[in-house]
Amino acid sequence: MKQIRVSTGKKMELKDITDQINAALADTESKDGLCLVFCPHTTAGIVVNENADPDVRRDLERAFEKAVPAVRFDHAEGNSPAHFLSSLTGPSVLLPYQNGRLKLGTWQGVFLCEYDGPRTREVWVQAQ
Amino acid sequence: MKQIRVSTGKKMELKDITDQINAALADTESKDGLCLVFCPHTTAGIVVNENADPDVRRDLERAFEKAVPAVRFDHAEGNSPAHFLSSLTGPSVLLPYQNGRLKLGTWQGVFLCEYDGPRTREVWVQAQ
Amino acid sequence: MKQIRVSTGKKMELKDITDQINAALADTESKDGLCLVFCPHTTAGIVVNENADPDVRRDLERAFEKAVPAVRFDHAEGNSPAHFLSSLTGPSVLLPYQNGRLKLGTWQGVFLCEYDGPRTREVWVQAQ
Repeated sequence: MKQIRVSTGKKMELKDITDQINAALADTESKDGLCLVFCPHTTAGIVVNENADPDVRRDLERAFEKAVPAVRFDHAEGNSPAHFLSSLTGPSVLLPYQNGRLKLGTWQGVFLCEYDGPRTREVWVQAQ
Repeated sequence: MKQIRVSTGKKMELKDITDQINAALADTESKDGLCLVFCPHTTAGIVVNENADPDVRRDLERAFEKAVPAVRFDHAEGNSPAHFLSSLTGPSVLLPYQNGRLKLGTWQGVFLCEYDGPRTREVWVQAQ
Repeated sequence: MKQIRVSTGKKMELKDITDQINAALADTESKDGLCLVFCPHTTAGIVVNENADPDVRRDLERAFEKAVPAVRFDHAEGNSPAHFLSSLTGPSVLLPYQNGRLKLGTWQGVFLCEYDGPRTREVWVQAQ
């Protein structure tokens, strides 16, 4: 299992980590298979979406921020919206790779979704 | 890895692809294991839900359409709501299979979620 | 594949099943790998989130309940909101394990999300 470090600069930020995952895959023994990208944090997540037009990423950031329902939150740290979004998008994604690189759709990239930044986050990459 | 083609007929549509996945599994070498169902598109996704009463599917279509927050979307193609829903439901699901067929709960089926149709979509099926 | 049974006591409830998954992993042959936690129900799901402060769990329960859009639901059983939430959070999560135990982030636990309780639910644990 490889570990990636990702630094985020805003409260809510989608950060493209596709290249970092490919770098982690480059020296795994197996060249083809499935690869788990896992976020060990409870106020961040992993999302696959378009990484061509940066407007998509920014549109998603605004939409996620607004997707948190207006309910009472008791958790004293005040970041329950981030916990909620982390549960919505999930901690991980399983992706195919071939020849030591992610095999994604034409427009797909992999993002760390920061919901409670700025912070430095870990992402685990486990190839099979 | 097998590829399935799925044609959708509406802007927003849940299309049952359970039988197509089983067909793809039928001639894999391994008869038992886990199977990744992966959607290589950024405005569609994969969901597991009830495929008995068609009202469930139609209720989900209405609910997903309404689940998009009312924020400003800048992406020039105008399909940011579809990108958002694709991130919500995720690009893939990992499913158990036994004897060359998906092993699901009694009421579960696998759906391609089209959020920006009508289109012809690919779904990748990779059995382990 | 191991089966866990989980009883829920409320309509909407996040129930911590981390210990039960570890118990299921304890007597698998392989000690390291990836483990699928799969919910074979269409009105429940699996979520990974903080299991330290119980306020987080309760905040999430309130937020999920409110996250269901106000649309017309036709499904005669009346539990379409639960089907919707089950699609949002997904039926499963794939998790790393080491030395026969889940390897999670410091604050992460695994929850069955009951959206249509109280019921007794099954969760399948398949280690690779």
